[in-house]
Amino acid sequence: MKELEHELDFERLSRQGFAEAVLAEPKTMTQLKSICEAFEKKGQACLLTRLCKERQKEVASFFTQGKVEVDEIARTLSWFPKAAKKKKSKALVNLICAGSSDLPVLKEAEATLRFMGVPTQTLVDVGVAGLHRLLKKQDQLKQAQVQIVAAGMDGALATVVAGLVGTPVIALPTSVGYGSSFHGLSALLAMLNSCASGLTVVNIDNGYGAAMAAWRIVADIRS
Amino acid sequence: MKELEHELDFERLSRQGFAEAVLAEPKTMTQLKSICEAFEKKGQACLLTRLCKERQKEVASFFTQGKVEVDEIARTLSWFPKAAKKKKSKALVNLICAGSSDLPVLKEAEATLRFMGVPTQTLVDVGVAGLHRLLKKQDQLKQAQVQIVAAGMDGALATVVAGLVGTPVIALPTSVGYGSSFHGLSALLAMLNSCASGLTVVNIDNGYGAAMAAWRIVADIRS
Amino acid sequence: MKELEHELDFERLSRQGFAEAVLAEPKTMTQLKSICEAFEKKGQACLLTRLCKERQKEVASFFTQGKVEVDEIARTLSWFPKAAKKKKSKALVNLICAGSSDLPVLKEAEATLRFMGVPTQTLVDVGVAGLHRLLKKQDQLKQAQVQIVAAGMDGALATVVAGLVGTPVIALPTSVGYGSSFHGLSALLAMLNSCASGLTVVNIDNGYGAAMAAWRIVADIRS
Amino acid sequence: MKELEHELDFERLSRQGFAEAVLAEPKTMTQLKSICEAFEKKGQACLLTRLCKERQKEVASFFTQGKVEVDEIARTLSWFPKAAKKKKSKALVNLICAGSSDLPVLKEAEATLRFMGVPTQTLVDVGVAGLHRLLKKQDQLKQAQVQIVAAGMDGALATVVAGLVGTPVIALPTSVGYGSSFHGLSALLAMLNSCASGLTVVNIDNGYGAAMAAWRIVADIRS
Amino acid sequence: MKELEHELDFERLSRQGFAEAVLAEPKTMTQLKSICEAFEKKGQACLLTRLCKERQKEVASFFTQGKVEVDEIARTLSWFPKAAKKKKSKALVNLICAGSSDLPVLKEAEATLRFMGVPTQTLVDVGVAGLHRLLKKQDQLKQAQVQIVAAGMDGALATVVAGLVGTPVIALPTSVGYGSSFHGLSALLAMLNSCASGLTVVNIDNGYGAAMAAWRIVADIRS
Amino acid sequence: MKELEHELDFERLSRQGFAEAVLAEPKTMTQLKSICEAFEKKGQACLLTRLCKERQKEVASFFTQGKVEVDEIARTLSWFPKAAKKKKSKALVNLICAGSSDLPVLKEAEATLRFMGVPTQTLVDVGVAGLHRLLKKQDQLKQAQVQIVAAGMDGALATVVAGLVGTPVIALPTSVGYGSSFHGLSALLAMLNSCASGLTVVNIDNGYGAAMAAWRIVADIRS
Amino acid sequence: MKELEHELDFERLSRQGFAEAVLAEPKTMTQLKSICEAFEKKGQACLLTRLCKERQKEVASFFTQGKVEVDEIARTLSWFPKAAKKKKSKALVNLICAGSSDLPVLKEAEATLRFMGVPTQTLVDVGVAGLHRLLKKQDQLKQAQVQIVAAGMDGALATVVAGLVGTPVIALPTSVGYGSSFHGLSALLAMLNSCASGLTVVNIDNGYGAAMAAWRIVADIRS
Amino acid sequence: MKELEHELDFERLSRQGFAEAVLAEPKTMTQLKSICEAFEKKGQACLLTRLCKERQKEVASFFTQGKVEVDEIARTLSWFPKAAKKKKSKALVNLICAGSSDLPVLKEAEATLRFMGVPTQTLVDVGVAGLHRLLKKQDQLKQAQVQIVAAGMDGALATVVAGLVGTPVIALPTSVGYGSSFHGLSALLAMLNSCASGLTVVNIDNGYGAAMAAWRIVADIRS
Repeated sequence: MKELEHELDFERLSRQGFAEAVLAEPKTMTQLKSICEAFEKKGQACLLTRLCKERQKEVASFFTQGKVEVDEIARTLSWFPKAAKKKKSKALVNLICAGSSDLPVLKEAEATLRFMGVPTQTLVDVGVAGLHRLLKKQDQLKQAQVQIVAAGMDGALATVVAGLVGTPVIALPTSVGYGSSFHGLSALLAMLNSCASGLTVVNIDNGYGAAMAAWRIVADIRS
Repeated sequence: MKELEHELDFERLSRQGFAEAVLAEPKTMTQLKSICEAFEKKGQACLLTRLCKERQKEVASFFTQGKVEVDEIARTLSWFPKAAKKKKSKALVNLICAGSSDLPVLKEAEATLRFMGVPTQTLVDVGVAGLHRLLKKQDQLKQAQVQIVAAGMDGALATVVAGLVGTPVIALPTSVGYGSSFHGLSALLAMLNSCASGLTVVNIDNGYGAAMAAWRIVADIRS
Repeated sequence: MKELEHELDFERLSRQGFAEAVLAEPKTMTQLKSICEAFEKKGQACLLTRLCKERQKEVASFFTQGKVEVDEIARTLSWFPKAAKKKKSKALVNLICAGSSDLPVLKEAEATLRFMGVPTQTLVDVGVAGLHRLLKKQDQLKQAQVQIVAAGMDGALATVVAGLVGTPVIALPTSVGYGSSFHGLSALLAMLNSCASGLTVVNIDNGYGAAMAAWRIVADIRS
Repeated sequence: MKELEHELDFERLSRQGFAEAVLAEPKTMTQLKSICEAFEKKGQACLLTRLCKERQKEVASFFTQGKVEVDEIARTLSWFPKAAKKKKSKALVNLICAGSSDLPVLKEAEATLRFMGVPTQTLVDVGVAGLHRLLKKQDQLKQAQVQIVAAGMDGALATVVAGLVGTPVIALPTSVGYGSSFHGLSALLAMLNSCASGLTVVNIDNGYGAAMAAWRIVADIRS
Repeated sequence: MKELEHELDFERLSRQGFAEAVLAEPKTMTQLKSICEAFEKKGQACLLTRLCKERQKEVASFFTQGKVEVDEIARTLSWFPKAAKKKKSKALVNLICAGSSDLPVLKEAEATLRFMGVPTQTLVDVGVAGLHRLLKKQDQLKQAQVQIVAAGMDGALATVVAGLVGTPVIALPTSVGYGSSFHGLSALLAMLNSCASGLTVVNIDNGYGAAMAAWRIVADIRS
Repeated sequence: MKELEHELDFERLSRQGFAEAVLAEPKTMTQLKSICEAFEKKGQACLLTRLCKERQKEVASFFTQGKVEVDEIARTLSWFPKAAKKKKSKALVNLICAGSSDLPVLKEAEATLRFMGVPTQTLVDVGVAGLHRLLKKQDQLKQAQVQIVAAGMDGALATVVAGLVGTPVIALPTSVGYGSSFHGLSALLAMLNSCASGLTVVNIDNGYGAAMAAWRIVADIRS
Repeated sequence: MKELEHELDFERLSRQGFAEAVLAEPKTMTQLKSICEAFEKKGQACLLTRLCKERQKEVASFFTQGKVEVDEIARTLSWFPKAAKKKKSKALVNLICAGSSDLPVLKEAEATLRFMGVPTQTLVDVGVAGLHRLLKKQDQLKQAQVQIVAAGMDGALATVVAGLVGTPVIALPTSVGYGSSFHGLSALLAMLNSCASGLTVVNIDNGYGAAMAAWRIVADIRS
Repeated sequence: MKELEHELDFERLSRQGFAEAVLAEPKTMTQLKSICEAFEKKGQACLLTRLCKERQKEVASFFTQGKVEVDEIARTLSWFPKAAKKKKSKALVNLICAGSSDLPVLKEAEATLRFMGVPTQTLVDVGVAGLHRLLKKQDQLKQAQVQIVAAGMDGALATVVAGLVGTPVIALPTSVGYGSSFHGLSALLAMLNSCASGLTVVNIDNGYGAAMAAWRIVADIRS
C-alpha cells in the first residue's frame, strides 16, 4: 500500500519564526524518509526529535547534501542546507538539573536551542538535597534571560530556582524516578503546584517544548 | 490560643522584583488581619487572591490608610500605600478565552497584571467551535508580547492561538466543564500535550500564576 | 489440553447487517486457526484486527480458498469467500488526522470500511498547529457524510473539524504522544469534553470501532 | 466593573445548520441576561442547558417576546422568536435508560431534540438486570434511526442495545451511582470498551451532546 | 548470599480446609525450589500459579516423587504426593466467558478447582453483543451452585448472568482490551458497579482467587 | 411534564428468588411515590435503600396498608404487605467491622438481610490495630456460614478474617477515612489485592450488595 | 434501634505505651457519648481528633470530672482524669510549615504531642519560595530530635529540611492548594519521591499520625 | 559530545552524617564511571542502588583499590576505601516481610543498613493470611529499635506489626502483585491509611529510603 504524501507546514517559519519539528518516535522509516526529502527539496533546515540511537545513522543518510548534526543522548538530528548561516542570538538560556539522570531531557532542550541559534549554559548536580551547591551558583542564574529547570522525582528544584530569580522559569518534569513517581507525574504535579510565583510547566520529558518556550521569550533578542 | 507571628518574605521585592502575594482562601480572618497589618506597617503594596465575596468588605477594612481595590469577580484585593506611584509597563499582555464562563479566572490574571502595572487587552468569545471569530482577531494577537489563553473543557483554544503567533503563550486551564472534565484535568492534559510548539502551562484556575509568568517575561519592558 | 470449540455469532450478519470481527491480539494461533476455519466452513467473509506483522503470513495460510487481503500497517486481515461480491456503498467517509503518526489507527478504520464496502477519502497533515492546511480542505470535508478524526496528544483536531461541518464527527483518540498524554488519555478526555456540539468518541486506537460507527450511520446509503 | 460584550457565533446556524447553545451553569445572571438579549435582538431561537431550577423563572423573564419553554427536570430553557415555525423532522430517535434515576439526563437530550424539531420515543426501566423487559421492546428499537442509551453504574445497557440493532447507538454515561462509580467514570469506561461494534460515546451527563450527535445523523431526514 | 529459610503456612489446611498456594511469578528459581522441596518433605499437595511457560519444566523437576500436573495456558502446576487421593466434590461450578481471549484466566480458575476437587463446566463465546447465545444456555446456568464470569473490556457479561440466576456470581475481570480499558480497570469498575444485585468481584486476572471464593461457598457440599 | 410510567421487574422474585430493590437516592419524590404505589398494588414486599433521613417519613406515608420498617442509620425502608409472613432462614451471617464509623454501611447490610429473612450477628470494634479483640471472637466467626467484613481506611480487617476462617468472606469497603483514602479507594484496592485466598469484594459503601451476595450463598439453607 | 456496645482497646496503653485515639468525624454524637463515658469509667486519658467546632462544646460536657482541653483550630479534645499527672518528655519535636494555611494540620500534631507529654517548637512562614527564612533557622532545626514538616501544594519544604539535618523527618502533606493539587495528592507524591534520603510520609492532613510517629521515635527519651 | 563534570555533594557526610548515594538505574555507564572515580579520588565510601545484574561486574571494575561489596538480589554495590573501618551501631533494625516475593526490596534495605553499619534481623513468611506465624515472633519484634515492614498487594502486614509494638514502624510498599495492585499503589494507599497509629511510609520499592529513615532514628545509638 502506497504511503500518503505529506503536507508539511513550511509556512510556519514565516508565520511564527520557526519551522515545524518532526517527532520521529512514532513514525516509520518510510515516513521519515519522505519527510526528510521534502525538507531537503524545500531547502529548509529541520529538526527531528526522539530519534532513537538505532535509527540515527540511517536517517542521517536520507540527506544528500547540507550538514547533519546528531546528538546521541538527546536523540535529536538537525539538518541545515548548505547555504544556511546559523543566526546567533544574544540571549542566554540556563539549563539546570539536579543530577545526571535528567541530562538526556535537558540535552534535547540544548539541541533544540542550538538549532534555533540560542546559546545555553548548563548547571548539573545542583539538587535540593544539597542546597549549598545551587546557592553558590546564583551569579550564573542571573546571567540568563530564561531558566529551564529539569527535575524528576519531587520536582522541587524548579520551585527553589523560581524563588531565587525574577526571570522566566520553565519547569521541565522528567520521568526519572520509580514507584509512585508514576513516570514523571509526581514531578509534574509538584511543578504545577509550585509555591513560587509565575513558574510555567511543559509536558513530562518535553525538552523540545521547554526550549521552544524559551525561544518564544528570547526571540526578540535574537539579532 | 494565640496565633503565631508571621514572617513574611518582604525581601522578595528586592530579590525578584515582585512582592509576596497572599492566597486568602485557606486562611482565617485572624490570619488575614495580621498579614494585612504587617503589609501596612511595612508600607509595601500587597495583593490578596481567592478572597471570596463574603469576606472582601471586612478585609478591606483591615487597612487604615492607602488605597484598596477590590475585584469582586476576580476575587482579588489590592492595597497600595498612599505614597505609592504605580509604575506603568510599556508591554501589553493579551487575555484570551473561549467564552464568558472562563472570565473569573481570566480576571484574576487581569487584576494581578494591573497590580504589577502591566496593561492588558481581553478577547472573549473566540472559541474553537467557531474559528472565524479568532481568525478575525489576528491583528490584536500580534499587538501583545505575551498571550494568556484561558480555557476549560477541551483546552483547544491554547493550541490554536499558539499556532498563530510566535510570541510566548501561557495556557491557563480552567475548571469549567462537567463529567469527564474532572474539574479542569481534561483541559490541563490537553494543554500539556499541545501539538503546538513552545506553549507552557500553569495550574488549573491559576490566573495569578499565569499573570506572574507573563510579568517575568515582560519585566524588562517595564520602564 | 484440548481447546474448547468456538460458538461464533454468525447470526449477527442478518440481525445487524454486519459480521462479528475478530480481535486477534489476545488470541493464540490455535484459537485463530479454529476461528478462521469456522468462517471458511460457514462461507462468511471475516475481518481480523490487531493481527501483528509477525503472525499475518501464517494466519493468511489458514484459509484454503477465497481471497485474503492483508494491510500490514493497519494490522488487519480480511477474507472473502470466492463467491463473494463486495457491495459498494454510495456513501463517502472522510478519514482525517493531524500527522502521519496517527496513520496506523486511521488505516485500521480504512481497512474496516473497505471490508464493509464503504469508500473513504484520507486527509493527513492537517494539524491544528497550522490551521491554514485544514481550512483549505473545507470542500473535501463537505463531500463526505461522516468524518472520522484521529488525533493523539491534545486531540484538538476533532473539535476544529466538528466546528466546520454539520455532518456526524467521530473522534478517534490515538495513543500517540508521551509523558502526560498517558497513552491517549489526554486526547480521549479532550474529545469527550469538546466545546463543539454533537461530536462522539470511541476508545483509544479503536480504528475498527470508529469505522463501524460510521458504517451504522451510512448503512442505509449502501445499496 | 463593566462586563465585556459577547460575540456569539450566530453564523453557526448557516455554517452547520444549528445555533450555538448556552451552557448556563458557570455563567452569572448578568452574563445570561446579556446573552438572552443578544439572541432576542438577533431574532434567533436559542437553547440554554444546565439552568438550575432556582434561576429558570428569572432567566425566562429576560425575553420580552416570542415563546419560552422550560423543562424543570431537564434544566433546559428554549426560546423561539414569534415568527419562528418549528420544522419537524421525519426521523425518530429512541431515548433509552435502565431506570428512572437516569431520566434528568435523558430529558436534556429530549428537550434538545425537541428544540431541533426531531421526534423522540422514550423507553425507561429496561435495565440489564431484568433483560426480558428490553427484549420485549425490540420492535420499538427498530422504529428509530438512532438510539441514545443513558446508563450510570455499569453502563451495560448500551452494549446490549448495540448488540440488538444495526442503527447508530450513542452511549450516554450518567453520574448515577456511588462509591467506585466515581461520578460516572465506571459507566464511561465500560461504554468506551463495549464489546459491541460501532457504539460511540459522549461525556458523562451530556444529554445535550448526545442529542446533537443524533441530530447530525438525522439532519438529512429533516425536511 | 544464602537465601533465608521459608516458614510456610502448613497449618492453613487444618485451619481453613485448604493449603497455601504459591504465586510463582515474582519468585526466583532458587526460592521456588526450596518451596517445592518443603511441600514434598511435608507431604502436602501444592499449587503454583502464574508459572510462566519457560519455567514450567524445570520447576516440575524439583519434585522427586508424587504426581505433577501442568496446565500450560493456565500457567499452573499442581503436585500431589503419591498417597494422595483426590476428594471429589458433588458441587458444580460454571466457568463462563465472552470469548476465547479470556480463556487463560478462566483456565487458572479451572485448574485451581480441579486441584481442590471441584468439578467445573465451561461456557465460552456467550458475549453480550450476541445475547441469544447466552439465553440458549440458561439450563446449564441453573445446573451449577456457583457462576464464575470472566470478562474484559466492558465486563457486561457478569451483570447479565447475575440477572438470570439466583446463585452466587463471582465476577472475574480480565485485562483483555486496549486503550481506555486500562489493563482491566474498565471491566473491574463495571463489575463493582453492576446494576444486578449481589454479585461480588475479585482482582483483575485473578482466576485463582475466583476459584477459591467458589470453593469457600461449595466447601460443605464436598463430601 | 408528566412522568413516565415505571415498568418494574416484578418477575425477578420468581426468576431469582428476590425482588428488585429501589435505590432511592437519585430519585425524585414523585418517582418514589409511583414506585411505592406499584409495589403496594402488586402486593409485593419491597426494600428502599439510601433513603435519607429527611425523606423517610414522607415515603413511609406512601403506603396505605401493610407494615413499614425504617432504619434511620442504615437509611433503609422495608415494606411488607399485610398478608406477608416473613420466612426465617436457618443460616447465620456475621457482620463485622473495625469501629463504629463503619456501622451505617454494616447496618444497610443488616437491614437487607432482615428483609430477606436471614439472621445476623454483629461484631464491632475488632480492628486490626488491636488484634487480640478479634482473636477472642473466633468462636463467633465459626458460627456463621458467611462473613461480611466492612472496613474503611486500610481495609486490612477483611484479610485477617479471611485468614482465620474457611467460610465465604465478603469484603465491604467503606468510604470512612480522609486524605489518600480517596473516599474508600484505599480500602477497595487493599481488599481486591488481599493476600488471603478467596475473598470477594463489593462496591464501596454497598451494604445492600454485600447482603445480597450473602443471601445468594445461603439461599438454599433458607427453609 | 439500640446502638451496639463499644469494645475499646484499653490494653493498648500497656502493650504499646499509648492509648487508642478517637477519630470523631464519622461518628454520631450517641457513639461519641458512649465512648467518652467508657474512657471516664476506665479512668484513662483520651484524645479525640477531627472534632468539628460545632460539636466541641457538647462533647466536652460528656465528661463529668477530670480536665478537658479543647483546641478549636486543631479540632482536638483531650481529657485527663483528675489524678493524672502529665509526664513530660525531655525530647523536642519541631513543627514546621511554609505558611499559615497549613497551621490547622500542624496544630493537630501539636495537640497530640502535648497530650503525649512531648514539647514542641513551631516554625511558620519558612516556605521554599523564600529560602533565606529557613536558612536563618538552622540552629532551631538542630535543637529537635524529630522534624515534622507540613506542606501542601508542591510539598518541597520537606525535601529542603531533610537536606539540612540528619535527624528523622516526617513529611506531612496537607490538602492546601487547588486545581491539580487534587486535595493534597501533589504534595503527597512529591514527598514520597523526595530526592532527600530517609524522609518518611504520613497520610494527607494526618497531623495526629505524624505526631504519633514522632512519639514512637522519642518514646525512650520520655522519662 | 563530552559529558559534563559532576559536582557531588561530598559535604553531606559532615552536614548530615551520611554520604550521597547513587541511583544507578537511569545513569549511563560513562556517568557511573566518572562518579565512581570521583568517590575513589575523594576517598569517601559510596553506595550504588538499583544497579542491575548485567552492569554489576563492570561497575565494580571502575574502582582500582579499596573493597567492593555487591548484592546481586538487592542490586546494590558498596565501595569502601582501604583505610575505612566500618563503624558498628549498637542498634538493631528488624526487616520484616510477608513472603519471599518482597525479598529483593527488603535486601536493598539490608544492604543499605550494612553500608551504614547498622545490624539487622530479617523475618520472612509472616504474612497476615496466617497470623500465628507473626504472633510467635513477638519477642523478636521487641528486640529491635525500628521495624521496617515490606509488603505488596494489600500491605496489611505493616498495620498488624504497628499494632503489636510501640517502636517506630516504617512501612515499605512493594510492587509485588498484579491487576489492581497497580504496581504497588494498593499497598501504598493501604499503608498511608493504616488504622494503626504513627506508622510512616516511603515510596514503593524504596528499600534504600526505608533504611535511611531507620538510620536517622538510630543514628544516636551508633557509637
